Amino acid sequence: TVRELVAPLHYADIADLIETLGSEDRARFVRAVKSVFNAEILPELDDAVRAEVIEELGFEDFAACLREVESDDAVYLAGQIEDEDERATVLAKLPAELRAVIEQALALPEFSAGRLMQRELVAVPSYWTVGETIDYLRSGARLPDEFYQIFIVDPRHRPVGNVRLSALLRARRPVRLREIMDPKTAEIPITMDQEEVAFLFRQQNLLSAPVVDASGRLVGRVTVDDVVDVIDEEAEDDMFRLAGLSEGDLFSAVVDTVKSRFTWLLLNLGTAVLASLVIGLFESTLEAVVALAVLMPIVASMGGNAGTQTLTIAVRALATKELTAANATRIVGKEVAIGLINGLVFAVLTGAVSWVWFGNPAIGVVIGAAMIINMVAAGLAGIAIPLVLDRLKVDPAVSSGVFLTTVTDVVGFFAFLGLAAVFIL
Amino acid sequence: TVRELVAPLHYADIADLIETLGSEDRARFVRAVKSVFNAEILPELDDAVRAEVIEELGFEDFAACLREVESDDAVYLAGQIEDEDERATVLAKLPAELRAVIEQALALPEFSAGRLMQRELVAVPSYWTVGETIDYLRSGARLPDEFYQIFIVDPRHRPVGNVRLSALLRARRPVRLREIMDPKTAEIPITMDQEEVAFLFRQQNLLSAPVVDASGRLVGRVTVDDVVDVIDEEAEDDMFRLAGLSEGDLFSAVVDTVKSRFTWLLLNLGTAVLASLVIGLFESTLEAVVALAVLMPIVASMGGNAGTQTLTIAVRALATKELTAANATRIVGKEVAIGLINGLVFAVLTGAVSWVWFGNPAIGVVIGAAMIINMVAAGLAGIAIPLVLDRLKVDPAVSSGVFLTTVTDVVGFFAFLGLAAVFIL
Ligand SMILES: [Mg+2]
Ligand SMILES: [Mg+2]
Ligand SMILES: [Mg+2]
Ligand SMILES: [Mg+2]
Ligand SMILES: [Mg+2]
Ligand SMILES: [Mg+2]
Ligand SMILES: [Mg+2]
Ligand SMILES: [Mg+2]
Ligand SMILES: [Mg+2]
Ligand SMILES: [Mg+2]
Ligand SMILES: [Mg+2]
Ligand SMILES: [Mg+2]
Ligand SMILES: [Mg+2]
Repeated sequence: TVRELVAPLHYADIADLIETLGSEDRARFVRAVKSVFNAEILPELDDAVRAEVIEELGFEDFAACLREVESDDAVYLAGQIEDEDERATVLAKLPAELRAVIEQALALPEFSAGRLMQRELVAVPSYWTVGETIDYLRSGARLPDEFYQIFIVDPRHRPVGNVRLSALLRARRPVRLREIMDPKTAEIPITMDQEEVAFLFRQQNLLSAPVVDASGRLVGRVTVDDVVDVIDEEAEDDMFRLAGLSEGDLFSAVVDTVKSRFTWLLLNLGTAVLASLVIGLFESTLEAVVALAVLMPIVASMGGNAGTQTLTIAVRALATKELTAANATRIVGKEVAIGLINGLVFAVLTGAVSWVWFGNPAIGVVIGAAMIINMVAAGLAGIAIPLVLDRLKVDPAVSSGVFLTTVTDVVGFFAFLGLAAVFIL
Repeated sequence: TVRELVAPLHYADIADLIETLGSEDRARFVRAVKSVFNAEILPELDDAVRAEVIEELGFEDFAACLREVESDDAVYLAGQIEDEDERATVLAKLPAELRAVIEQALALPEFSAGRLMQRELVAVPSYWTVGETIDYLRSGARLPDEFYQIFIVDPRHRPVGNVRLSALLRARRPVRLREIMDPKTAEIPITMDQEEVAFLFRQQNLLSAPVVDASGRLVGRVTVDDVVDVIDEEAEDDMFRLAGLSEGDLFSAVVDTVKSRFTWLLLNLGTAVLASLVIGLFESTLEAVVALAVLMPIVASMGGNAGTQTLTIAVRALATKELTAANATRIVGKEVAIGLINGLVFAVLTGAVSWVWFGNPAIGVVIGAAMIINMVAAGLAGIAIPLVLDRLKVDPAVSSGVFLTTVTDVVGFFAFLGLAAVFIL
């Protein structure tokens, strides 16, 4: 049976399997394994696929899943139900304590540490000895299933340090925790953006970190396995946004995909029409020398490609905090220099090709000059646009691309046709 | 002094600081902190910056750094020295054991698990009790500084399971490890590619995993903090490659950057010239109706943008194994359908604009038809090109882009000018 086939698989592999199926097979699969459905599968699913699976499970079974998973996953899953009434129906089926945890977390901004954190943790005072701590852990007190470090708190429950489990295991029983604890390192405010959290984890090689509320009290912990997902998703996000995608839509329905990709294409149509308007200014020039129409896309296209290289480096470096106010000027200078060098190199190449092709040296000179101008513009725009957007608190990954191609198309066509109008006609 | 200012900073923050400095300040900074240089800074640096810092440190101090860091970092750092003689000089300054570890690891393929793994680990037999294990850990035997789990090995030193430290701490002393160990989960062959390793960690939420040699013996462990870097770098890699960048070059010298970006731009020049050749076929058509020259970049540009959306989704989905042989046909069908719908929508929009602009309904019809053809071609090429490259074992992120723009430019210009030649002239 399906159940026997699925039993030995890891829940994440089952999630992948469900994603691979078509909609109908997916529903049939879920019905077949419903009575033994592993709640851990849900957080691993793609959003669009998860919505279908939850639909098939029904409120009762979905609520049972929320009770099974860790508190951070319960918050995440409950947050995926967009309809307020449906969410209320599900929450009503949960024990009061879990419901409160979920409601509090969902009141926090999306993508904040409070959404990512898990409530279950181990916190003890610094005057405890290693022996007392181990006895407490062995006592079967209400402890998380898994924990990576022990948080040390003061009497007001504020974190003052943490003890790595390997350090605890290596110390002798009478040793006090304060002697083996790491001095308080990263402490995460509950409102911190998940990108900042990910940056901290990556920077300091953390396994888990304490989350504190506004008064500095320890309220939860973020664990590295969830940060791994954040890092992956944030990088994916930037990659998608640069290409004009608002989200991953591999498993979305055709109509949803069309909708989500539409805005970007419409914007680009605007850019393309703008470029055409520029070309339209030179109709008489084009009529006189039709070779210009043949060659004109080259300048614009090379500028677009060179600019995209710079843009991608800049967007990524802003995300990883390698590009900052401290080195921005230097990097701008560098990119302009690169634009100039590339411009010169490709001016010679393209100029030579064009001269030979149309047997007209003037065309070669004009396209070469236009190439230099557009490559410099591309380098400058490629670095300046994301810097300015970032300064304006706009995500540079989302909108840089349109601005860049506008610059490289307009400058490219204008420089080439304008120089031609002056020097060839 | 500089030293006092830097002392309270985390090594990763010092690395960022060094990256921010210009070349001369960087050298001066390294000289100032040389005598108290923290070896942990080195693995955190950008490649180009690290080369400068190592140069400034000199072989003697660099060898001292290799002795200080964990074995995986020592392997990584030694691998960064490209010059064979220089590397030999440095290795000669190391103790024989460390030198052997590094030489063995460097003989393995780059980006393999063997390069990523750390030799230091805790491995004990399954018949040990919790008490014996804790006593062993407390004995101060040669143990790693930090460990996240205890590997259980059979008499031939093959991993048979692992015990989470939280499970060890919660169990009573007489309990045998075999009773609390997780049955053998992920086991990583020493030659496994780091992308596969990262996939496993992400999929199974691992903290560390055992690495085995060809005969199945436990030889090391990979830890999640290093996998976090791999995940980030691999995602960055794909993002860069899609934009035609061979590597991150923010901190590289201008001349190196120009060189590394050149190939892609040259390839794109080839594509652009090819597109011009297509346009050249229709010189007489363009001469007759100059409006065509004004409008023609619109069709090509929209195809390029729509195709890039599809391409980016496909490249990412191949990297995350969400796009596989099992669902490829379905996704191809979906992307073609999306191309058709987008084609229809933008055909109407662009057709209407063109008609009004040039007061010629035939031009509107021709550009609309060309738009539909090119959008379908873009959808098909956007998904098919990466799938075929992946099947041919070529990284789809590296080369898809050129092929895609070739298709959308050639089809775009050919469809628009070809239809115009037939129906308008
Ligand atoms: Mg998955
Ligand atoms: Mg996903
Ligand atoms: Mg989880
Ligand atoms: Mg964000
Ligand atoms: Mg790291
Ligand atoms: Mg979690
Ligand atoms: Mg972002
Ligand atoms: Mg850094
Ligand atoms: Mg790779
Ligand atoms: Mg996970
Ligand atoms: Mg390491
Ligand atoms: Mg490290
Ligand atoms: Mg890759």
